Amino acid sequence: MSPVEIRRATADDIPAIVAMLADDPLGAARETPDDLRPYHEAFERIAADPNQHLVVAVREGQPIGTLHLSVIPGLSRRGTVRSIIEAVRIHSDVRSEGLGTRLITWAVEESRTLGCQLVQLTSDVTRVDAHRFYERLGFEASHLGFKLSL
Amino acid sequence: MSPVEIRRATADDIPAIVAMLADDPLGAARETPDDLRPYHEAFERIAADPNQHLVVAVREGQPIGTLHLSVIPGLSRRGTVRSIIEAVRIHSDVRSEGLGTRLITWAVEESRTLGCQLVQLTSDVTRVDAHRFYERLGFEASHLGFKLSL
Repeated sequence: MSPVEIRRATADDIPAIVAMLADDPLGAARETPDDLRPYHEAFERIAADPNQHLVVAVREGQPIGTLHLSVIPGLSRRGTVRSIIEAVRIHSDVRSEGLGTRLITWAVEESRTLGCQLVQLTSDVTRVDAHRFYERLGFEASHLGFKLSL
Repeated sequence: MSPVEIRRATADDIPAIVAMLADDPLGAARETPDDLRPYHEAFERIAADPNQHLVVAVREGQPIGTLHLSVIPGLSRRGTVRSIIEAVRIHSDVRSEGLGTRLITWAVEESRTLGCQLVQLTSDVTRVDAHRFYERLGFEASHLGFKLSL
């Protein structure tokens, strides 16, 4: 199998990232891969913020995975810097090949490098397989995640 | 009752904020109000980041509540900007007086002003009263929150 590189996403990766976000039971209803304009605007904002790390996993030039890592300073827990993992997706052609583990392991190591003492993420309650996956990687489902759409 | 003002925290508020973080069943074991040095360092980083909004609710010059709002851009959900609420605390002298509702309502309105389309937070699974509180305010417990300490 060809080697996989994890690197910072560029604007050229947007179509492939959005296609992965949309190729998902929940994402299908939320994304618009035929209209990339809002994604390009969002990408500019992400790229300009040094605390945002949007990456792609690439094999033979093709993005086959993506993940967004955010770094958030805070006062609580003696000034703990935490990272938040969002928007983890693996291309449907390469699922169950260990790429998810590789991406999350990368995010944990990168969080450590960036000085974080805590990594957190939320996962939709319906994604039962994802919950087992995160627990295998050492994450603890210690919290409920609440959302409010504006 | 004297009016309550919600305003951006200053370095002078750090002792009062840390005292509130520590006066909590979970915070008691995690905070060090007798050693404020790490909090001052964290405050500098928060104050320098335009996406971090650490506030205090103040009555008669005394901080009686605190909340940290972070703004995070992202590609998913058509480039949705989300806010994250962390470190919500109400001084024990004024609990059950509606200040929590006032603070969260402020955070939701501020999120709207800042261009966010989604507000999210996590709450420890043991904080059952807090869960009911957030659901009353319109939040949906749609996710599990995972954490990994580094």
